[in-house]
Amino acid sequence: MIVEISVVPIGVGESLSKYVAEVIRVLREKNIKHELTAMGTILELSSFSELCEILEEINKRLFSLGSPRNYFVLKIDVRKKGGKIEDKVRSVLEKI
Amino acid sequence: MIVEISVVPIGVGESLSKYVAEVIRVLREKNIKHELTAMGTILELSSFSELCEILEEINKRLFSLGSPRNYFVLKIDVRKKGGKIEDKVRSVLEKI
Amino acid sequence: MIVEISVVPIGVGESLSKYVAEVIRVLREKNIKHELTAMGTILELSSFSELCEILEEINKRLFSLGSPRNYFVLKIDVRKKGGKIEDKVRSVLEKI
Amino acid sequence: MIVEISVVPIGVGESLSKYVAEVIRVLREKNIKHELTAMGTILELSSFSELCEILEEINKRLFSLGSPRNYFVLKIDVRKKGGKIEDKVRSVLEKI
Repeated sequence: MIVEISVVPIGVGESLSKYVAEVIRVLREKNIKHELTAMGTILELSSFSELCEILEEINKRLFSLGSPRNYFVLKIDVRKKGGKIEDKVRSVLEKI
Repeated sequence: MIVEISVVPIGVGESLSKYVAEVIRVLREKNIKHELTAMGTILELSSFSELCEILEEINKRLFSLGSPRNYFVLKIDVRKKGGKIEDKVRSVLEKI
Repeated sequence: MIVEISVVPIGVGESLSKYVAEVIRVLREKNIKHELTAMGTILELSSFSELCEILEEINKRLFSLGSPRNYFVLKIDVRKKGGKIEDKVRSVLEKI
Repeated sequence: MIVEISVVPIGVGESLSKYVAEVIRVLREKNIKHELTAMGTILELSSFSELCEILEEINKRLFSLGSPRNYFVLKIDVRKKGGKIEDKVRSVLEKI
């Protein structure tokens, strides 16, 4: 299962990098393989319950940093078999 | 917590309504308040763990209907206090 | 072409309804068929250029209302043939 | 303006890499600065009209490759001033 998480804390001003940094801290603490991009963070997870533990923790941390409202956008690509971050990118590059 | 779920089963042909109907069945069985729109289904939930139970069940059902790959797009609006579907729409309409 | 637009002005505080109301005003002025939901506004459009005129206008208006930064999330469902809002919902309901 | 585009051609089978490769070809032909990730392609653009030219071309190419239906998910981060891909990532990494 490959997930891209983006979260916008609403009501904390224009700059959000401090809050996105907290998201990365959560992932590092949980030893989750991840890739930070300009528009989200891409994770490789094993289950929906693992995903929701992460969302719960991120939400709690952003609330504790003073955000009154969090807006998440998630994209989840889940296959019966396989699904690795590198495989997806490589299989595209091979075909260009 | 207000969530909008859209799911695209990939590899089952052009028409997806049969699979979206299965999503609605899952929500009805779980007595989840929901609103079907042309671009997703909007839910009112109490926690991320409740969300993940629903995602798990939807994913399992779509796999059992023959989809080899499911692509979810989720938008989640979570506030420290409040957050009802009707309140959001009414507070916009009042200001037009 | 069916499009769902959600826009989060960033840096204007927690409540966004005033800004979403402005989005609806733009659509009414342009006579665009639309449906406001709790998680976005669904439109029926004829082309990508029509979409971009709307995005341009919305972005400009939100900037003029004082937003320094706008975060759009768009979902676009475009078919070679057909694609009406009512058809999508009806074809799901018929199969539940 | 930073944009992330993901597009799912619906009705062409489980593997989509051939179609995503076509998206990259379009961007290269148009000399658009872009970054391919496992969950989308991130672009730096100057206007909504530039965005829609790209979407139009991508949509046309995927139809010509045999897709009957294209499902786009776009995230757009537009600021009154500034907004570079590297700046966003660097400002997060500096705060971890």
